[in-house]
Amino acid sequence: MPNSFGKLFSVTTWGESHGLAVGVVIDGCPPRLPLEAAEVQAELDRRRPGQSDIVTPRKEEDRVEILAGIFEGRTTGAPLSLLVRNADQRPGAYDEMRDKFRPSHADYTYQAKFGIRDHRGGGRSSARETIGRVAAGAVARKLLALGPAGGAPTGGVEIRAFLTQVHDIVAPAEALAAFPTLAEVEATAVRCPHRPTAEKMIERIKAVRAEGDSVGGVIECRVRGVPPGLGEPVFDRLEADLAKAMLSLPATKGFEIGSGFAGARQRGSEHNDVFALREGRIRTESNRSGGVQGGISNGEEIVFRVAFKPTATILQAQRTVDRDGRETELMGRGRHDPCVVPRAVPIVEAMTALVLVDHWMRQAAQVGTFRIEA
Amino acid sequence: MPNSFGKLFSVTTWGESHGLAVGVVIDGCPPRLPLEAAEVQAELDRRRPGQSDIVTPRKEEDRVEILAGIFEGRTTGAPLSLLVRNADQRPGAYDEMRDKFRPSHADYTYQAKFGIRDHRGGGRSSARETIGRVAAGAVARKLLALGPAGGAPTGGVEIRAFLTQVHDIVAPAEALAAFPTLAEVEATAVRCPHRPTAEKMIERIKAVRAEGDSVGGVIECRVRGVPPGLGEPVFDRLEADLAKAMLSLPATKGFEIGSGFAGARQRGSEHNDVFALREGRIRTESNRSGGVQGGISNGEEIVFRVAFKPTATILQAQRTVDRDGRETELMGRGRHDPCVVPRAVPIVEAMTALVLVDHWMRQAAQVGTFRIEA
Amino acid sequence: MPNSFGKLFSVTTWGESHGLAVGVVIDGCPPRLPLEAAEVQAELDRRRPGQSDIVTPRKEEDRVEILAGIFEGRTTGAPLSLLVRNADQRPGAYDEMRDKFRPSHADYTYQAKFGIRDHRGGGRSSARETIGRVAAGAVARKLLALGPAGGAPTGGVEIRAFLTQVHDIVAPAEALAAFPTLAEVEATAVRCPHRPTAEKMIERIKAVRAEGDSVGGVIECRVRGVPPGLGEPVFDRLEADLAKAMLSLPATKGFEIGSGFAGARQRGSEHNDVFALREGRIRTESNRSGGVQGGISNGEEIVFRVAFKPTATILQAQRTVDRDGRETELMGRGRHDPCVVPRAVPIVEAMTALVLVDHWMRQAAQVGTFRIEA
Amino acid sequence: MPNSFGKLFSVTTWGESHGLAVGVVIDGCPPRLPLEAAEVQAELDRRRPGQSDIVTPRKEEDRVEILAGIFEGRTTGAPLSLLVRNADQRPGAYDEMRDKFRPSHADYTYQAKFGIRDHRGGGRSSARETIGRVAAGAVARKLLALGPAGGAPTGGVEIRAFLTQVHDIVAPAEALAAFPTLAEVEATAVRCPHRPTAEKMIERIKAVRAEGDSVGGVIECRVRGVPPGLGEPVFDRLEADLAKAMLSLPATKGFEIGSGFAGARQRGSEHNDVFALREGRIRTESNRSGGVQGGISNGEEIVFRVAFKPTATILQAQRTVDRDGRETELMGRGRHDPCVVPRAVPIVEAMTALVLVDHWMRQAAQVGTFRIEA
Repeated sequence: MPNSFGKLFSVTTWGESHGLAVGVVIDGCPPRLPLEAAEVQAELDRRRPGQSDIVTPRKEEDRVEILAGIFEGRTTGAPLSLLVRNADQRPGAYDEMRDKFRPSHADYTYQAKFGIRDHRGGGRSSARETIGRVAAGAVARKLLALGPAGGAPTGGVEIRAFLTQVHDIVAPAEALAAFPTLAEVEATAVRCPHRPTAEKMIERIKAVRAEGDSVGGVIECRVRGVPPGLGEPVFDRLEADLAKAMLSLPATKGFEIGSGFAGARQRGSEHNDVFALREGRIRTESNRSGGVQGGISNGEEIVFRVAFKPTATILQAQRTVDRDGRETELMGRGRHDPCVVPRAVPIVEAMTALVLVDHWMRQAAQVGTFRIEA
Repeated sequence: MPNSFGKLFSVTTWGESHGLAVGVVIDGCPPRLPLEAAEVQAELDRRRPGQSDIVTPRKEEDRVEILAGIFEGRTTGAPLSLLVRNADQRPGAYDEMRDKFRPSHADYTYQAKFGIRDHRGGGRSSARETIGRVAAGAVARKLLALGPAGGAPTGGVEIRAFLTQVHDIVAPAEALAAFPTLAEVEATAVRCPHRPTAEKMIERIKAVRAEGDSVGGVIECRVRGVPPGLGEPVFDRLEADLAKAMLSLPATKGFEIGSGFAGARQRGSEHNDVFALREGRIRTESNRSGGVQGGISNGEEIVFRVAFKPTATILQAQRTVDRDGRETELMGRGRHDPCVVPRAVPIVEAMTALVLVDHWMRQAAQVGTFRIEA
Repeated sequence: MPNSFGKLFSVTTWGESHGLAVGVVIDGCPPRLPLEAAEVQAELDRRRPGQSDIVTPRKEEDRVEILAGIFEGRTTGAPLSLLVRNADQRPGAYDEMRDKFRPSHADYTYQAKFGIRDHRGGGRSSARETIGRVAAGAVARKLLALGPAGGAPTGGVEIRAFLTQVHDIVAPAEALAAFPTLAEVEATAVRCPHRPTAEKMIERIKAVRAEGDSVGGVIECRVRGVPPGLGEPVFDRLEADLAKAMLSLPATKGFEIGSGFAGARQRGSEHNDVFALREGRIRTESNRSGGVQGGISNGEEIVFRVAFKPTATILQAQRTVDRDGRETELMGRGRHDPCVVPRAVPIVEAMTALVLVDHWMRQAAQVGTFRIEA
Repeated sequence: MPNSFGKLFSVTTWGESHGLAVGVVIDGCPPRLPLEAAEVQAELDRRRPGQSDIVTPRKEEDRVEILAGIFEGRTTGAPLSLLVRNADQRPGAYDEMRDKFRPSHADYTYQAKFGIRDHRGGGRSSARETIGRVAAGAVARKLLALGPAGGAPTGGVEIRAFLTQVHDIVAPAEALAAFPTLAEVEATAVRCPHRPTAEKMIERIKAVRAEGDSVGGVIECRVRGVPPGLGEPVFDRLEADLAKAMLSLPATKGFEIGSGFAGARQRGSEHNDVFALREGRIRTESNRSGGVQGGISNGEEIVFRVAFKPTATILQAQRTVDRDGRETELMGRGRHDPCVVPRAVPIVEAMTALVLVDHWMRQAAQVGTFRIEA
């Protein structure tokens, strides 16, 4: 099921950019979770276009409806079905795309794969597909905040993504040493918690937009409160599933966890995370592992980064070919984000939440079902 | 099934480092494929330790037996079961690990997850698990070399991985512009096709080993001959499944495709891959996409890189804690690769082959089953 | 994913009886299939209540909307999302069920499993859930009618279900020897193609209804045009997946294929289906196998039967207990089918189509992807 | 993965009748379960041929080896790999089958599906495949005997299958009212706990064998100790997964749960299971539901029956065709069970155990992972 993600907390998205609606079905959600549409809406509002002067001015209200799976304000264990109607449809606005393949978009590959494509606004390849992911992620985040069944109430799991880079502007590492607060992240339109860097990023995005161009960037995501033991030994390692989740997002080109590519430049004696006791718990003194060892969470902060390429749509003439194989030219137009990365922050968080909930449920099943002596 | 990979060409590995054997079951292999144990053995020999003076001198013969799924030299469509007996068992050699958690290994997390662990040689977390992957990959590569059913005979798909970096020694990009030959890769023990760089890498590995230390590195993998259309639009993007495959390998910390993290520093006008006609086919003039657009192969070379951390086992004293939560010290000993990256080359190729075969079969199912008019 | 069915042609249903809507997402549908809502509607109309004087007089219009996955009248390869709004909601009509468990319904088990339940009209356990199955089945039947890619145009696959039994009224076997036409099945409200039996069945249902009681029955389903080779050797045998499909329907208590339970009373010499040549093809002279041998279709008619229990809702007082564990009494009321079996005919056909399409796609993937010599 | 069964407790079997070995990989087994090969062996011994004078006199020792997944006598959470070497190979004994299709065997359909087949002893279609199922079932039964994590020690789940019918000899229902003991079942070679019936069955089997013929029969399986709440609402109903499990066994033609096909002849007022309180628990006064309502266990005994056709191999001449499409004759020979049903008893129990463990783990994941208020 290529449009599904997750084995036990399974999320299936559907819908095209300019169809009637986009939506998501969540199968396997635990029952009795209090849930209101407003909670989902809050996350959708974070990914919505038109929130600031550096993102696309398209007006998409993106009101979510919960069609099934809730009874008297709680989940029932039946599938949740959530739907957002598409509003901003402008017939004719995409006529040129019917025949011409936009460079570095999915137009050509969809045509090659399926022999047909809904060219309007990118159809299924549009980032509107991620609405369903963010909606499902909102439910997953509520679960993660609860902590484990049978355990004491905890602070729960907190997921915080933010920008560390736009184009060649990089936030200084020391400025991001502490776990950023949500307020710090949301303080600026670029969602970089280091304000001086954020201001430079905004300036750069505006400058690039003025030239009809676009830029890429990097998101870092940190997760705290994850207990040791999530993730599987071999193929379904926690970092493997996070990598898949991130590379399944539009415009992503890279993923690294902990030391990442820089770790390849280190020696073992520098890189290893030494174990020590802190407050009676086994901890590591450094975290080059990024919170995951042997595919399994070790209780430290999970830290990973995702690279996004520059927006493919630029307001410049580009050479291309059409469906009949003739060389031609395409002039980008319309309202597009010159940098998609700030709006990707809630999407990265949502996918992270989906991965964690699923692995937590798997862990509970394997070690928590039968009465086995320690 | 955390120990399985692939939806239609499904591979399940089993076995621990110091158990009786390791093995793999391949379910869904097409029938009538000619297959001999020797062909699988050839790939296993590439990952085997003891091949050169820079890898571990452990003698593991790793002879593969095909127990099921073959009849008169061809696959039957029934599951293939392949097994390699473990030979190099030295009882007692691992007694210290029974109680002490090795830094940056999976000892602690396995204990935390399962409440039990086979400490001998890392148990299930040992890289010996990858024997099954390489064996399965050998079968997948045979299939990929055949080309599509119903099509004309083609050159088939070629997969070539090689080292571009060890520690801070990086092969010059221009030296790797052409698709390297297998001979060029296998010419040196480090599997870097640029010989001057390879020599420096070997020297560095020897120097580091002399200090009882280790280093990491980077593998690049290129694939040519993949037709347009493999990969799925949303969650099961080709790059997402490749990322998962690579991050499921021991010691990996990062993945990037095409422009990767460097792409985040570019503008759209620099980054976009312009379409053009070449020899009557739609091609891109550059390949910053890395052969994949919108999650689907576009017929260009698939190019990705994987970061490996330095080997966690070092022959130095390291602080750690034991199972009872007491701080202690652990002295690494035994025979270990100071740099695992060269031996990871056939494993990266194997995982790539598994991803491609699976997606090819999925594509054939979706577009090639029913008689639908174009 | 408990609300999903099918591995490659994957169907996920959602929705409760008295929620806002019920629906289905179909993932993996081949692209370029011409599809209109009216074609799906035609199948939904066959399962709709209120079609005759022996079924519930509830007025459910059940208008299907296709929200995604279609472009210019053809499928695109993206998920199809289909939705039917719930109309016939009568708040308050189900207040008694909030606390009392209806005998032989799912009220108690849902409460025990989830600790919560939407009691209105049975919530998720309502047969309204099957709307999604019938809608998906309509798409699957279109595919089955096309025949295999690359092959010559064929008559395609025909699926015909019909009643052979209501209560103790059984159609004579010889009257059902020929493959019934759709017209013969639809000729009467009970969907038994043998009219004299059909009339007796109708009479019996009316008599039983007059007493506030209900009856069960048996559906036989036959499929012709299935090529040899569908189904898998071991767990995913064609008959195993058909059995699962049928036992996943509300009110079913049994499944048998070919000779079924009667076959247990035979000797091998009577039961075996002897092979012979007919018109140049390998055929069996009898069909006690029911079209499946070793889990795989043999090209003969697939023939199976499904047993349905009597409708659990009866208009009589029944003893029961409430959620607080007090014994009480419940008086059935409302508009219910005294015999659900006639309306189950299109549902049985739909599930059969889903199983066949999925297995056909799996077969195409395994034998039709790579260029392997015969 | 057609050779895998179970979503969380996943079992993959491999091997052919006359290959080197048959085996099974169990993925997802809870860690720390004490397990010895002898426990698995005990179940294998129950399915082994040569146990009595009414089954095949083939000598198959069927010694199981546990190759992986155990450490110091306990499971580790890693995959269990179990293997049984094939011993009784007689090259040449099956030469006639190379070309001729045995009636009502899988020879023709395998050839049609795969274009190749291992004809020796039926290859993959041989009942030797079920060795892996029985081995995995032995592990599952150990888990089921433990009861739920966090709960008080219970009697655990008991699974008891036995014959109720051979040919037209049927055990009287009243003789089987009580849950039979294992000793009662194992007392006779036919595994019918009602001794007078068992004696008639044995006599019949011997008579039929003397004529070179075979007979079918029916197995009933009862399960007690299953808590309410196992099974899923829609497609993965407990009875649907049991039906699939049973119809995936060789020679099965039917499945019914609770009232089964006889229930189709009843009225709702007769059939409904009235709820009542017994010893403070909600119970049903009758059990026509067979322990499952709405797809979910209700805490009553699970009761189902499986129909087996007569053994296809008979020691008589039968007409058939060969691979070249020529009509010919085949004379059955060799050592075969004239009635496979007694040896199927432990296999039915094993599959039942696999279904229950898997659903129990799924239930634990969905309701037992997060701290949700009741």
